[in-house]
Amino acid sequence: MLPANAQEHSAAKSEQAWLASLITKTPQEGFELATTLARRGVRATQPDTEVLRDLRSVYASDPDSLIAASSVVAIHFQTIAAANDYWRSSGTQARD
Amino acid sequence: MLPANAQEHSAAKSEQAWLASLITKTPQEGFELATTLARRGVRATQPDTEVLRDLRSVYASDPDSLIAASSVVAIHFQTIAAANDYWRSSGTQARD
Amino acid sequence: MLPANAQEHSAAKSEQAWLASLITKTPQEGFELATTLARRGVRATQPDTEVLRDLRSVYASDPDSLIAASSVVAIHFQTIAAANDYWRSSGTQARD
Amino acid sequence: MLPANAQEHSAAKSEQAWLASLITKTPQEGFELATTLARRGVRATQPDTEVLRDLRSVYASDPDSLIAASSVVAIHFQTIAAANDYWRSSGTQARD
Amino acid sequence: MLPANAQEHSAAKSEQAWLASLITKTPQEGFELATTLARRGVRATQPDTEVLRDLRSVYASDPDSLIAASSVVAIHFQTIAAANDYWRSSGTQARD
Amino acid sequence: MLPANAQEHSAAKSEQAWLASLITKTPQEGFELATTLARRGVRATQPDTEVLRDLRSVYASDPDSLIAASSVVAIHFQTIAAANDYWRSSGTQARD
Repeated sequence: MLPANAQEHSAAKSEQAWLASLITKTPQEGFELATTLARRGVRATQPDTEVLRDLRSVYASDPDSLIAASSVVAIHFQTIAAANDYWRSSGTQARD
Repeated sequence: MLPANAQEHSAAKSEQAWLASLITKTPQEGFELATTLARRGVRATQPDTEVLRDLRSVYASDPDSLIAASSVVAIHFQTIAAANDYWRSSGTQARD
Repeated sequence: MLPANAQEHSAAKSEQAWLASLITKTPQEGFELATTLARRGVRATQPDTEVLRDLRSVYASDPDSLIAASSVVAIHFQTIAAANDYWRSSGTQARD
Repeated sequence: MLPANAQEHSAAKSEQAWLASLITKTPQEGFELATTLARRGVRATQPDTEVLRDLRSVYASDPDSLIAASSVVAIHFQTIAAANDYWRSSGTQARD
Repeated sequence: MLPANAQEHSAAKSEQAWLASLITKTPQEGFELATTLARRGVRATQPDTEVLRDLRSVYASDPDSLIAASSVVAIHFQTIAAANDYWRSSGTQARD
Repeated sequence: MLPANAQEHSAAKSEQAWLASLITKTPQEGFELATTLARRGVRATQPDTEVLRDLRSVYASDPDSLIAASSVVAIHFQTIAAANDYWRSSGTQARD
């Protein structure tokens, strides 16, 4: 969250290409992409995946952490759903 | 929330198809779908439903957890309502 | 928030019809509907109204709980206001 | 937040008309209306203004409560700004 | 957050004109306006700037308070960006 | 968050130009810009980068802080995605 080093924007630049598009075939793929973005938002603040793995035992059994994580997925899913025009063209219903 | 394992995006991919569409017949079905998405957001971080069941006694009697959970449902409901053009075509009113 | 039982989506289905439309005559009715949706989001996680009534003494005198609850109403009100095209057709002003 | 009594939606109905429109002359009036809606969201859960007044000494000197309250105002202001098409027709700039 | 006095809406009315428009020349000015609105949201609940100044030593060194404050700025910036049609007409890119 | 000094809006004005546009070539650049804005939101309240660096050991190993930070990035990413019309013109898919 806080600038790990002075040069914020270039520090925020990750080398490897991991996000080329927000367009997915189905809402489920969109939900999975939202989960990935939520995780990437955590790694933008804490890039050390060892530290993140050690923390898992803490948050993965804390209801409030799990609910807060679900909230971040919900915000990203809202963005991705709008990007995909809510997959309306698929013509199916949630309860077909 | 934090990558359970190195391969985020494929790890986020769940096998079984559970979300084919955001389109529902009624706002009430939309609200129920929003509740399902909020729960799925929790399971994306903690897939072990045994752990989740054990945690229920903690969050289900904690007002702040219940309010936070309601907030996640509200974000998803906002997305689903937009997807369904707010069910305007149904022509009814909330207090008919 | 967490799946009360394995069959999420059908478990989320409540029998009684309580939400037929998001369309209301006035912003005030829209605000009241937003309050109802916020409460229903709590009941989606904790259906036992006895438990909810017992918790009232806890959250109803806790400023942070009250502010968090107001935040959920605000998200739902944003959805309902968009559904009603912000009641623009009523032609009145907030300070008439 | 939690149903004060069984009949949610009618209980949520307040008698006195206090919200006839979201349309305001200026962004500042819109911000003041957003503050009113944030407060009304609190009163929807705790209608007893005596209790609310007693709580003031607690939240009014707690930074996190003050920031959380500001967040609720921000969500409502976003709704009201959209309702007023961002007061674009006024033709002025924020730094005139 | 809670009504400082019975007459909410008029109490919320501040005398001095401080917000005439959401339109800014650049995204940076928009971000600065968002910061001002976030602060004004705090002052709507706690108008006493002496109290606010005393609280600074508490929140200005608390990561969660700082992150929560950044979240309020983000919501207001989303509103201001939409008001300015995302400054698209400026024709520049974030990494020119 | 709270006015560092009486003259809010001018105090919020930072001298150096750091945000000229929200338009980015790719979603990944948009995500990096969102991370920068989230950090800038923190610095708007606490400009002292020494203090921010000292706090890093606290929040960078606290799951709830990391999730909250990810939530701020998600709100800014939603704004930037809308600004870039969700990079639809790129024609690629998230899983090409």
